[in-house]
Amino acid sequence: MRNILLTIAYDGSGFSGWQRQKACRTVQGDIEAALLRLTGKAVELTGCSRTDAGVHAVAQRAGIVLEDGGIPTGRIAKALNDILAFDRREGIGDIKIIEAVEMPEGFHARYSARGKRYIYRIYNSEEKSPFRLRQFYQVGPHLDLSAMREAAKYIEGRHDFKCFETSGASPRKSSVRTVFEIEISETLSDEKGAREIIIKIEGDGFLYNMVRIIAGTLVEVGLHKRRPEELRDIIEGKDRGKAGHTAPPQGLYLDEVFY
Amino acid sequence: MRNILLTIAYDGSGFSGWQRQKACRTVQGDIEAALLRLTGKAVELTGCSRTDAGVHAVAQRAGIVLEDGGIPTGRIAKALNDILAFDRREGIGDIKIIEAVEMPEGFHARYSARGKRYIYRIYNSEEKSPFRLRQFYQVGPHLDLSAMREAAKYIEGRHDFKCFETSGASPRKSSVRTVFEIEISETLSDEKGAREIIIKIEGDGFLYNMVRIIAGTLVEVGLHKRRPEELRDIIEGKDRGKAGHTAPPQGLYLDEVFY
Repeated sequence: MRNILLTIAYDGSGFSGWQRQKACRTVQGDIEAALLRLTGKAVELTGCSRTDAGVHAVAQRAGIVLEDGGIPTGRIAKALNDILAFDRREGIGDIKIIEAVEMPEGFHARYSARGKRYIYRIYNSEEKSPFRLRQFYQVGPHLDLSAMREAAKYIEGRHDFKCFETSGASPRKSSVRTVFEIEISETLSDEKGAREIIIKIEGDGFLYNMVRIIAGTLVEVGLHKRRPEELRDIIEGKDRGKAGHTAPPQGLYLDEVFY
Repeated sequence: MRNILLTIAYDGSGFSGWQRQKACRTVQGDIEAALLRLTGKAVELTGCSRTDAGVHAVAQRAGIVLEDGGIPTGRIAKALNDILAFDRREGIGDIKIIEAVEMPEGFHARYSARGKRYIYRIYNSEEKSPFRLRQFYQVGPHLDLSAMREAAKYIEGRHDFKCFETSGASPRKSSVRTVFEIEISETLSDEKGAREIIIKIEGDGFLYNMVRIIAGTLVEVGLHKRRPEELRDIIEGKDRGKAGHTAPPQGLYLDEVFY
């Protein structure tokens, strides 16, 4: 048997999330259907992270187990891409298998992960754009990045992050996580006066909706609706109600998984 | 009565084109539904151009006739945007009414147009990107822009452009049109080695699929599948079969209408 790890990029806007569902198009569902066509057998795809509807991935990871023989591991990515793009216009789909590599026995796409990096993209412009609907959170008023960076410092480190978790989440032993680093950068956009703001956040793991709630809270700081030092109380309070809004899914990208 | 001209931007990827249809989401259909909600009456929206499914507009124009009294013209854009975004996540929709202005009696959004500008966007990179699926034509091999520019010179001017028309089009008196200018430019993309190529084309009018067939033919020249000087024969031949492929809709943007 071969224990194979896939690296996958996708634009999440056409999907009802990662996880297989009966009546909806999902990333897992599409790739498993492609694996069935490729191998002639039902192959289960184990994703590292179950991204929500509208959320994107630059490098999601997912494991499959294949029998020896059959298609060589080095050819799987291209073969799957050919199938995935098959029914799409012009042969370019919204899922791309970047690579497939063989891993040691015992390696697991989710449980072996030591950390992840997410990116949250904001289009900061008074003039909102219909062309950025699916890939940015569009915020009109100018965001104060210094204030946001100051607030982000309170989040870095090892904390109980219950305040940044949507309740009703999947069961987990503890809500303590370590945020290694939050980096906030900006680039000017093509459009006059518009900025693209990127919040990059790395940690050993994330609770349900944690990155989106952090992004929403930082946006409120950037709008001067909250002071940066409030973050200390928010985290200590362990109360979701004290934190900011959940920023929308289309700004979120699973950027990297560390093993 | 007020003869009002709307300027409209939209991302076409979520629509079955401009023209109202019963079972599908269309740009005209969505805006007419918003006008009904705004005015309490059925208002017909007359577009300057009936863009196809997947085609975008930076500045489509469309006319409406409203009774005097009722909402002031200067407030129509904001009011429609509020309604159009109403059911969309985070209040940002894929249609944006940029402005509404009153025009003289006798002005007609389609018949008064003296010309149009389209933009065709190509993402030229060996590494195709799932994030550019809806807004670019993705072409892998490096495109030779000098050859494309040379070919474009044969297209400029007044010609019978039957070769660049999809048959079965709507009836028109003549297939003679004037292409004022074709400009081809490039910018480097964020991704290593990738370029965004823009074909800008202005003319007094365009036949059905004309811009997309021109773009497809220029791409074939850029790939060295055709020589630039072949364009002369293609145009003189007046035979659709001699021209290149129809480039996909998602790269096409109606950029401006001239009155």
